[in-house]
Amino acid sequence: MKIKLLDGTIKEFNCSLTILEIAENIAISLKKNTIAAKVNGKYVPTDYIIEKDCDLELITSHHEDYLKVLNYTTAFVAGAAIESIFKDTKLAKILYKKDECEFGVTFEIEPRIGLDQLSVIQSKVMELLKNNSITWTKVLWDEIEKSEEYNEYQKYIAKEMYGTYGEVFLYKIANTKFITPHPITLNTKLIKALEIQQLSGEYWLNDAKNIMLQKVHGIVSDSQASLDEIKVSLEDRRSRDHRIINKTLNVFGIDNLVGPGLPLWMPNGTIIKEEIKRYLKEKEWEYDYIHVTTPVIGTIDLYKKSGHWDHYGEDMFQPFNGGAGNEEQFILRPMNCPHHIAVYKQEQRSYRDLPLRIAEHALQHRYESSGSLTGLERVRAMELTDSHIFVRPDQVEQEFKAIYKLVTEVLDTFKIEIDYLSLSLRDPEDKIKYYQDDKMWNEAEIALENVLKDLNLDYKKCIGEAAFYGPKLDIQIKTAQNHEITVSTIQLDFLLPKKFDVTYIDQNQEYKAPIMIHRGLIGTYERFVATLLEQTKGILPLWLAPTQVEIIPIGDETNESYANEVRNELKKHFIRTHIDNRDERLSYKIRDAQIKKIPYQLVIGETEKTNKTVTFRMYGSEEQITILLSEFVNNLINKIKLKK
Amino acid sequence: MKIKLLDGTIKEFNCSLTILEIAENIAISLKKNTIAAKVNGKYVPTDYIIEKDCDLELITSHHEDYLKVLNYTTAFVAGAAIESIFKDTKLAKILYKKDECEFGVTFEIEPRIGLDQLSVIQSKVMELLKNNSITWTKVLWDEIEKSEEYNEYQKYIAKEMYGTYGEVFLYKIANTKFITPHPITLNTKLIKALEIQQLSGEYWLNDAKNIMLQKVHGIVSDSQASLDEIKVSLEDRRSRDHRIINKTLNVFGIDNLVGPGLPLWMPNGTIIKEEIKRYLKEKEWEYDYIHVTTPVIGTIDLYKKSGHWDHYGEDMFQPFNGGAGNEEQFILRPMNCPHHIAVYKQEQRSYRDLPLRIAEHALQHRYESSGSLTGLERVRAMELTDSHIFVRPDQVEQEFKAIYKLVTEVLDTFKIEIDYLSLSLRDPEDKIKYYQDDKMWNEAEIALENVLKDLNLDYKKCIGEAAFYGPKLDIQIKTAQNHEITVSTIQLDFLLPKKFDVTYIDQNQEYKAPIMIHRGLIGTYERFVATLLEQTKGILPLWLAPTQVEIIPIGDETNESYANEVRNELKKHFIRTHIDNRDERLSYKIRDAQIKKIPYQLVIGETEKTNKTVTFRMYGSEEQITILLSEFVNNLINKIKLKK
Repeated sequence: MKIKLLDGTIKEFNCSLTILEIAENIAISLKKNTIAAKVNGKYVPTDYIIEKDCDLELITSHHEDYLKVLNYTTAFVAGAAIESIFKDTKLAKILYKKDECEFGVTFEIEPRIGLDQLSVIQSKVMELLKNNSITWTKVLWDEIEKSEEYNEYQKYIAKEMYGTYGEVFLYKIANTKFITPHPITLNTKLIKALEIQQLSGEYWLNDAKNIMLQKVHGIVSDSQASLDEIKVSLEDRRSRDHRIINKTLNVFGIDNLVGPGLPLWMPNGTIIKEEIKRYLKEKEWEYDYIHVTTPVIGTIDLYKKSGHWDHYGEDMFQPFNGGAGNEEQFILRPMNCPHHIAVYKQEQRSYRDLPLRIAEHALQHRYESSGSLTGLERVRAMELTDSHIFVRPDQVEQEFKAIYKLVTEVLDTFKIEIDYLSLSLRDPEDKIKYYQDDKMWNEAEIALENVLKDLNLDYKKCIGEAAFYGPKLDIQIKTAQNHEITVSTIQLDFLLPKKFDVTYIDQNQEYKAPIMIHRGLIGTYERFVATLLEQTKGILPLWLAPTQVEIIPIGDETNESYANEVRNELKKHFIRTHIDNRDERLSYKIRDAQIKKIPYQLVIGETEKTNKTVTFRMYGSEEQITILLSEFVNNLINKIKLKK
Repeated sequence: MKIKLLDGTIKEFNCSLTILEIAENIAISLKKNTIAAKVNGKYVPTDYIIEKDCDLELITSHHEDYLKVLNYTTAFVAGAAIESIFKDTKLAKILYKKDECEFGVTFEIEPRIGLDQLSVIQSKVMELLKNNSITWTKVLWDEIEKSEEYNEYQKYIAKEMYGTYGEVFLYKIANTKFITPHPITLNTKLIKALEIQQLSGEYWLNDAKNIMLQKVHGIVSDSQASLDEIKVSLEDRRSRDHRIINKTLNVFGIDNLVGPGLPLWMPNGTIIKEEIKRYLKEKEWEYDYIHVTTPVIGTIDLYKKSGHWDHYGEDMFQPFNGGAGNEEQFILRPMNCPHHIAVYKQEQRSYRDLPLRIAEHALQHRYESSGSLTGLERVRAMELTDSHIFVRPDQVEQEFKAIYKLVTEVLDTFKIEIDYLSLSLRDPEDKIKYYQDDKMWNEAEIALENVLKDLNLDYKKCIGEAAFYGPKLDIQIKTAQNHEITVSTIQLDFLLPKKFDVTYIDQNQEYKAPIMIHRGLIGTYERFVATLLEQTKGILPLWLAPTQVEIIPIGDETNESYANEVRNELKKHFIRTHIDNRDERLSYKIRDAQIKKIPYQLVIGETEKTNKTVTFRMYGSEEQITILLSEFVNNLINKIKLKK
């Protein structure tokens, strides 16, 4: 049999071998270091026997799945610990969240367990790892289905695994038997350091219609030192969670009667959003965009025509009627493209009108399940920094360059680094997914690649990941939470203009279909502000800070009137201030202003009043500086103008 | 019997008399001048017999209903003309639109009549008026109901009339019989000048579910001279119709697939709207408002709690579910108050936090019937310049003054004159409509009146017209179309804060309910922009003009590069330009810029290029002025800053 390894080399063997035997055959050290393997995409333990040709990945500490194996294995042992401590536990499934470096196991117990049990579970896990080994066996799906030994969750998983891989693996440790398709290492000695950290709830299959299971989660590593590192980095990430930062910054609120996933932008959040918006619109002005405002709803027929109803119907809020007894049907728009096409079509356009850059910072709605809603990051109502640019085929390259330039200038302003560029092309073999027009596709794909080469950019080429309507470039960033997100996107679309019969008249007086470019500048304000808060830990630059100057009057009460004078002078120049005239000590007020991350704290006393000066200290600094009020105002105006 | 006249005097008679006999009894001239009458609110002809005590208004040329009588009578005769010309006409109803000085008659005919028939109808009306007299009779509702002589429209009207007045009047001229509750004069000689002007369609009862009737409309007067005056004023008004102005200014568009009543703000409209918004937000900043952004939807429970569902349910778009199969119910908000309450309630507020002025230029939706939709004036999606201000009872007066000042400063900027102030108070006798708290009402009403007196303002006091939740001041204006509209409103609300358990902690550490002030600054952007376009005939001041400068390069082609230089210099200062480089004559381009009402037209030639100057002419002026480009830019910046 022929075994193809990850590096492309092919090894030939003439008898069945276990994973470890193959590893040994390649290199002795490899036998020692292999903790599990992947055979044709399926995870298997090290004594799994290979009998025929396959692709094989040996998982060692250098493999990207190394931590995955460690975490799933620990999750499994944690499940076993819980089952051995609590009678009638029904184990459900094991989980691993890479971004959070976290394992978890879900289960059902009556009565529910409490936080005080976590240390008991942790001890039991340690004991199991020390005194027991993990074994495994294949089980027939038919047997599982009939047997009463497996609970409904395990049966569900077994069925899924059987459907995907044609085999079901049952792992055992002590008295616990557990079915999972995830990688489990038999080498329990590997798990050197772990910490059970939390207890929470999770709906079975993340569906609110199902039972709420309990979930134990924790972190694990192969050394105490590396676990400590993970803990420090997790601590940092948690302090950067925008929902935590929101507690002092008051950017958004949620009211369940208004509705889950429908954030209220509070005054502070509205300031941040509007400042960003003003900046983006100025950049769009610079790049000759025109702005429109279109309705947030449309008739259902609009979305049937656009194809959204068929493609995205399940992620949309459901249709609704007009007034009581009226039959007109409307829908909250999930995307803005059809509306911008309607704007385009208000006039017959000519080749001289193109490129036509229609921009709108536009509200749209998607129905996310309640379980997946997360602060500002995953919401049901969102304002997208959207644009649809209509171009002639000969303008694609130039326009693409201009858009890319705009995007990078904007990201630079926010000090956001691009992680990588993902160029999604069609799979030319896939005749079903992709709109068929080889000439159009080839030209467009070549145009995009040319631009990237011209600009000397690195990019990942993803064959078969284009949208069905055209190729695209996604600009990927990594958030402070380690989430990879698409912050900006530039997508070519040949299809929608044709569906809606969008035309321009060319130089020969003929009707032609323009190409439509969908451009998301910084995605939605909701997710972008969440990202920004996490990246900055809420320490926003002056131009974005909701309160820019905290004014603290001290001493005589008459100084308060000078404080007001200072405030009014700043207000005239649209500088956002707050006067702290509470009956508290100065040090307390300064500390409070620091907690609120206000860039400037002004202390206003007798001297300042007499000399028309202010004494300020900047956020994070101990230094106090006294300057003329007029000078202070000018400094701030300049700094704000420069977006510092 | 006792007859009470309009001036309050009471006349006594001891026998039945006709209207004309009573008129004669008062003054001989009055007999000659009375063309119809109103008896206890019901319109009657001059030979109607009065038998018992009543309120009587004699309609002469001095009475406010004079034109109404003339128009309805002509509409009736026009109906008779149509019936006599076209076989099987079913006459429906007669109409009079005071604002448009227009009468109309609706009818059903197969096949439909064409525009070319209007002159025939006009001649026939003249002939009927010349050769026939109008007579009338009372008919019993029972007879009408059974008879086949009356069509379904006439039966409907008869039933309504019977329900309202207990009597049905049937008017006749030539062979036409017609039922109407509207005033008809028997004096056909009065109608001296008329013009049948238009043919259009109208749904029976303005309901799109009903049949589309045809409608003939025209204008009428008692002399040719006054008809000519009406025509001139109508011509002016029609040229001011914002839908007409929109054809050259391209402010908004309608796309039926997006949906009727859901305007697309085109680039020009978006500029106008955003410039107004920026100005309003600056004013709100000056008055210490804080801005929020809240979702355009909410759960249905929110509106049940607020009372909107019960009070306005029929005018709202209908509720909708979340994702497919999900039971969560949402609704497009018809008002923003509950959302702003949710913002307030995100923190426990104290007496020191009040007044809290929450502002949002907020999108809301109402379901208007398709028949009533009119351009930007009556729409289904609208952005309201909304605010909810939470105050302590002792702050009402001062806050009310501040709001009134803000409103008048804003209206002044737009040169909009207040027609009158309407102070709506409760009817203290009405114990059902009004929220019961006499102390609160008295204090609030006195506070409002005090403010108006303090400010030395005239106002109309409207008892019983307060909202059920509190008294209000409406600021009424008259549009160029002669429509009276409420442009701004200031409403006190005691009720909603209690319904939602909104509180602040007072100086004694007790929980108190604040008073909520609903404030509409300039109503909705949709209606306000319609009003503004009609008032200005689309000749917007520089700061609002979508294109501020039209640049026309002449002569050598190299001058075009200087034109671009000029454009870029202006663009740097956010001045909106357009270069007209079409292959057309200069005079044509200048005319075109005038049609588009662009404030400045620049002509750029050799001299300008050499001297770095521009030659401009302003809209409506013939004078050409040449100045340095830099000077021109500065002039414009200043003018824009001053909102000129």
